[in-house]
Amino acid sequence: MPTPRTTASRYPTHRMHYDQTVIHAILDEALFCTVSYAVDNEPFAIPTGFVRVDDYVYIHGSVGSHFLRILEQGLTVCISVMLADGLVIAKSAFDHSVNYRSVILFGKAEKVEDYDQKAHFLKALTEKMVPNSWDYLRPMTASEVKKTTVMRVSTQEASAKMRTGWPSNEPGDADFPAWTGLIPTLTKRQAPIPAPESAHIPLPPHLQG
Amino acid sequence: MPTPRTTASRYPTHRMHYDQTVIHAILDEALFCTVSYAVDNEPFAIPTGFVRVDDYVYIHGSVGSHFLRILEQGLTVCISVMLADGLVIAKSAFDHSVNYRSVILFGKAEKVEDYDQKAHFLKALTEKMVPNSWDYLRPMTASEVKKTTVMRVSTQEASAKMRTGWPSNEPGDADFPAWTGLIPTLTKRQAPIPAPESAHIPLPPHLQG
Repeated sequence: MPTPRTTASRYPTHRMHYDQTVIHAILDEALFCTVSYAVDNEPFAIPTGFVRVDDYVYIHGSVGSHFLRILEQGLTVCISVMLADGLVIAKSAFDHSVNYRSVILFGKAEKVEDYDQKAHFLKALTEKMVPNSWDYLRPMTASEVKKTTVMRVSTQEASAKMRTGWPSNEPGDADFPAWTGLIPTLTKRQAPIPAPESAHIPLPPHLQG
Repeated sequence: MPTPRTTASRYPTHRMHYDQTVIHAILDEALFCTVSYAVDNEPFAIPTGFVRVDDYVYIHGSVGSHFLRILEQGLTVCISVMLADGLVIAKSAFDHSVNYRSVILFGKAEKVEDYDQKAHFLKALTEKMVPNSWDYLRPMTASEVKKTTVMRVSTQEASAKMRTGWPSNEPGDADFPAWTGLIPTLTKRQAPIPAPESAHIPLPPHLQG
């Protein structure tokens, strides 16, 4: 449901989406977000990894993290995510654009105190970053869960914005003989590189291919 | 020069860099940034393209852009950039990490009013996004420059933060037989896809290869 904070005032409204399914899909594809907050009306921002579980975005850090200790005061945060899908090449620089999918969400950061919820988040984050790795790793200890601050923000007050498709050119440019089209951009995981300590350990199946 | 806003309070200080050469190199590699600002002590953030020229980061948009009209009031912004270089795989989930290079900068957004400076920025942005394309495109008109709001923020109050290298594991994990290492991530431009209107136009040399 759009709120004043998530309603585009001017941008083409067909680029805006408020459906949680669309918002969740973008959040699930992005590994990193930017968490913005304000202190004394001055902005601060931190890029960080995150995972969405159900209707919440979870972030974490050391219990000593300055940033998380500020958020624990009950601050409203703005979390933004952008997936760049490609450059849109038009006949004029003016009509150049970017194909992208982004999410902006607003909400109060809540600290997750429950041990099981924290452990559940840490597993979900690990499995997002490296699918099927959780059971292969040295099991997490209670002390590690306790040393980690986990915070969550609801995805309810959020909007997605995206651009897809071909360039659009000024009507007067129709006969200008410049090439137009898309240059897709793709972020890919490369082949794993073993640490020196792991030279003798076979690459596990979940990291192959 | 570190300021209170750019000084890490706790994070490993060897990850922090204040050298403008380091900061500029990260800004020049990243195509997109997140611009954060505060209104009535509430945070807002917008992902957008940008270019650095000399000691300034330049952003732009339509003169009607709600976001830029707010910044024109002389707001302080926090601009953040993150380049994810890879996932760092340790023996435990707790020791997993990310190799990255990031920049956070703070400054007042200044509107660029001078026509030549605006035109210079628009060329620099186009050449950053698509190198060597400016002279090939339909030349920019004075009206297009006037319809574009350009704002800049100094790179002087900025810090870079980066992690490189192998995972570090808990001392007690030395004998746990899990593979450790890096999974590099790389964002690449794919082969250009012509728009239907350009099917008969040869791909220009600056978009080849």
